Parts: sequence; C-alpha cells; structure tokens
Amino acid sequence: MSARCISRPGLAVHRGAVRPVTRALPEEVPVALVFDGSTQAVMMATPDDIADFAYGFALSEGIISELSDVAEFETVTHARGIEARIWLRTERGSALKERQRSLMGPTGCGLCGIDSLEQALRPLPRLPAGGPRLGRAEVAQATDLLRAHQPLHDQTRAVHAAGFLRPGEGIVMAREDVGRHNALDKLIGAMVRQGLDPAEGAFVLTSRVSVDMVQKTVLARCPILIAVSAPTALALETAQAAGLTLAAFARGGGFDLYAAPERIVDGESHVA
Amino acid sequence: MSARCISRPGLAVHRGAVRPVTRALPEEVPVALVFDGSTQAVMMATPDDIADFAYGFALSEGIISELSDVAEFETVTHARGIEARIWLRTERGSALKERQRSLMGPTGCGLCGIDSLEQALRPLPRLPAGGPRLGRAEVAQATDLLRAHQPLHDQTRAVHAAGFLRPGEGIVMAREDVGRHNALDKLIGAMVRQGLDPAEGAFVLTSRVSVDMVQKTVLARCPILIAVSAPTALALETAQAAGLTLAAFARGGGFDLYAAPERIVDGESHVA
Repeated sequence: MSARCISRPGLAVHRGAVRPVTRALPEEVPVALVFDGSTQAVMMATPDDIADFAYGFALSEGIISELSDVAEFETVTHARGIEARIWLRTERGSALKERQRSLMGPTGCGLCGIDSLEQALRPLPRLPAGGPRLGRAEVAQATDLLRAHQPLHDQTRAVHAAGFLRPGEGIVMAREDVGRHNALDKLIGAMVRQGLDPAEGAFVLTSRVSVDMVQKTVLARCPILIAVSAPTALALETAQAAGLTLAAFARGGGFDLYAAPERIVDGESHVA
Repeated sequence: MSARCISRPGLAVHRGAVRPVTRALPEEVPVALVFDGSTQAVMMATPDDIADFAYGFALSEGIISELSDVAEFETVTHARGIEARIWLRTERGSALKERQRSLMGPTGCGLCGIDSLEQALRPLPRLPAGGPRLGRAEVAQATDLLRAHQPLHDQTRAVHAAGFLRPGEGIVMAREDVGRHNALDKLIGAMVRQGLDPAEGAFVLTSRVSVDMVQKTVLARCPILIAVSAPTALALETAQAAGLTLAAFARGGGFDLYAAPERIVDGESHVA
C-alpha cells in the first residue's frame, strides 16, 4: 500500500497574517467498476489498491460471493480515471444480467419509488452467535491502534481508514480512501484476496456508522464493528437485527456498546 | 427545520467501568428521489426538509434548471422509507427520458468504462469573475458561525451541515443531514425555493471537500466554498478551473486559501 498525495501551494491565513504554504492533498479519481463490460458504478476514490476495491465492492454488492467467481481482473488507467474490469465466471455473469434487468424496471433505469425503497434495505443474514471475544481494553484501544496504519492520513489529515483487528493481535490489515465506504470495501477485498477471514475479528472504522457500513460488515460475515464516531439509529437497529456487535465512540480509552454486547468481555481477547 | 433523533440505550465503557447510558442517535431513512414515476436515486438521509432535498438534488444533477421546471411535488411516507415525487413540466420530462437513455448504454444499466468516466467528470461552467467579497475575519469565523445552526448535531454529534453565508450577515440559512452531500443538496434546494441567490455569498461546510462538493457548488453558481477540513487534489483542480474561491481547514481562527483568492479581502465583507 503506497500513500498517494499531491503537494499543492496555498495561502495560510491566521489571525490576519498571510503566508504561503504547501499542503499534501489526497488524490481522488473516478474509478469505474466494470463487470463483464458494463459499468455498475463510478466511485470517486483514492487510486490505490484498486483490485482490493473492485473485489470488495463486488462482494458487498452481492455480484460475487467468493474469490473464485472472478474469471479475470484488469486495471486500465485512462486520462480521466481508472477502469477496474472484472470478468465473471459464466454462472455469475448470468446472475449479473438478472440483477441488471431487475434494476432497470419498466420505465427506464429507475424502479418505481416503493420497489426502490425495498431494494435499498434488502434483508441481511443473521450472524451466527458466538465467534471471537474481545477484551474491553482492546476495544478501547482499537482506533488508536488503527492510527499506526494510516500513512496517507498522516500526510493529509483528510482520508478515512478501515482496519481488521484480530483478537490479541491488534490491527493486522488496513486500507485508506477519501471515501469511508471505499476504505471498507478495499479492506474486505484485500482480506478475501489474501485469505484472511473477517469472521475471526472486528472491523475498525475512522468514521461514523451509517446503515451501509453495517450492511457491508454483516455481508462480509464480520461479527464486530468498532467505530470512532456515532451510529445512526437505523445502523443500530440493523446491527441488532443481524446480531452484529456494535461499539461506537471508540476513542480516548472508552467506547459505547449498543448491540450484541456478549462478544466484548471483561478480560482477555480470544478467537472463537 | 426540526431536529430528528432517537434516544437509544447503550453501555458506556470507560477505563474498565461499565454504566448504562442513553444516547441521542440521528435518524437515517432511505429516500427515493422519483421523477415522473421513475426512481433516479435512493439516498440514505435524515428525514427532514425532504422537499428541499429533492429540489436541490434535481438542480445538482441537472434534472431541473429552475424552480418552475417542477410541475408538482409530493412526499409519500412508507414503512420502509420516504418517496419524494417530482413531476416535471413536459419539456423537462423529455430531457429526463433522454438522460435515462444515455445512462442505460448498450449492454444494460451500465455504460462502458470509458464513457462512464467521462460522465463522472462532466465539464463545469466557469463562474463569472467578481461577485461578493469576504473579509478574512468573516471567513476565519465561518465554521464557528455555522455551529449555531446545527441543532441535530448538538444532540447527536454525528451529522453534517451546510450553510449559506452572506457577506457581513453571517449564516442566513443552514441544513443538516447524516450525509454531507445531502446537507448541501438540501441547502441548495431550500435557497432556490425561498428565493435566495447562491451567487451572493459563500457555502460553508462541516466536511472535507471532495470533487462532488465543488461540482454542486459551481452548478448552484455559488462563487465561494469554505470548509472545515481538507480538499482533495481533484477538488482543488476543479475549483481552480471553474474560478471557485476555495477556503479549507477553516477553523480555530484561520484557514487555507487555494483558488481564486481575490474574493477574500483584507478588510470588510461586501456584496458584489
């Protein structure tokens, strides 16, 4: 993982005084996620770890369910952005066409309002009970531990990170992006590509927890989500319904615990 | 503007001690933006100011270019979310159908990769030179002034805001949302619906500045953008090309100035 930023000149104004400064700003480029030749989404993203991003997005969106669903992957860099091209195995390709047909609806690219609302809150599987246990002390430290894995943030103070914490081992993998959703998709893709199992630990986020972050976590079968900031009410309800342990406001040596508290214990962390 | 939050019980863990707490969490619901019966997008949003949101989204996306392009508006609340239904005047309706056709492409709902990258970075108009002038002191205060207009953030510490600052008058309008893009769309929609002209002042954001925030600002013809945090490199380039004045890291009595600095002056603020 290299850190992508660009130095740009500016003027710093402070208490009336003006002086020239040079700041490191994070790169941001359009990334087209193209499956079997058809674009499913264009995301504004940090141009690192594009393969991780494409695999993670495909998993989060249900386009693939495992690594072997991908027949071929390539990245093509254009003047205007990056194309991440995934070619699916034949069976998955037909599932994708089915998905496109259902997204198109009767009147064009949009579903009617009610159908599209149903689509947005698709039902999530329930996570199996049990799994890893994290000691309170490790949860309270989690976002501080993640700070050591944010080289791009160190330079720019302006990007999000998502990390994977394995009980007793701290953060074992992390990814950064200008977008918080992208950072989590990159982490999920990187883990699956490297054979790490999200079921064995916790995702740690530098961001707030909106419902989509809970959806991605549950679909990746990760049982614990730890975030530096607040959840929305809907994110909390969704976590409770899915049996996801949700720790928020995790900073300064403390955290709030909202759902499935049994995975956070008064003692040592341990794997299931 | 009412403040929408929900009280939820949790456990606060701090330095090993556990106590029950009740936190105010922001609401988040799917909002389907439906034009002439067809959904253009479903956004996870704070369920306030839905008409402002729908009008602002329509303006930002180029679906309408002025208030009178809307023939009818209604909000329908379902169990799963909110439908914002806009019916367009006939001419605009055909433009929408054209837009849908171009989005569908030859192979389904997605364009090919290169076309979709072009689409993501559509060319922006250049803002006219001149316009309002802001004194350095008012820019340095802008995000502090916005703090007085964030009732939902006061309760939850977890939502974004976008405000409009008129030279010498401070923040004259603001909107909040769990999403930073939504907050800005709501502000733009509210201003247009109430006859306030974005060309006369500055947008003030509690967030970072990604390229989409610059695009929305320029398309709304607002010549100055002030944000509490950093821009991306692409946001800065885009601001420079469009002639948008960009002040970032605006907090603690100072700010960084990156593009079109002539609108920030050593003296009093004044309208064009």
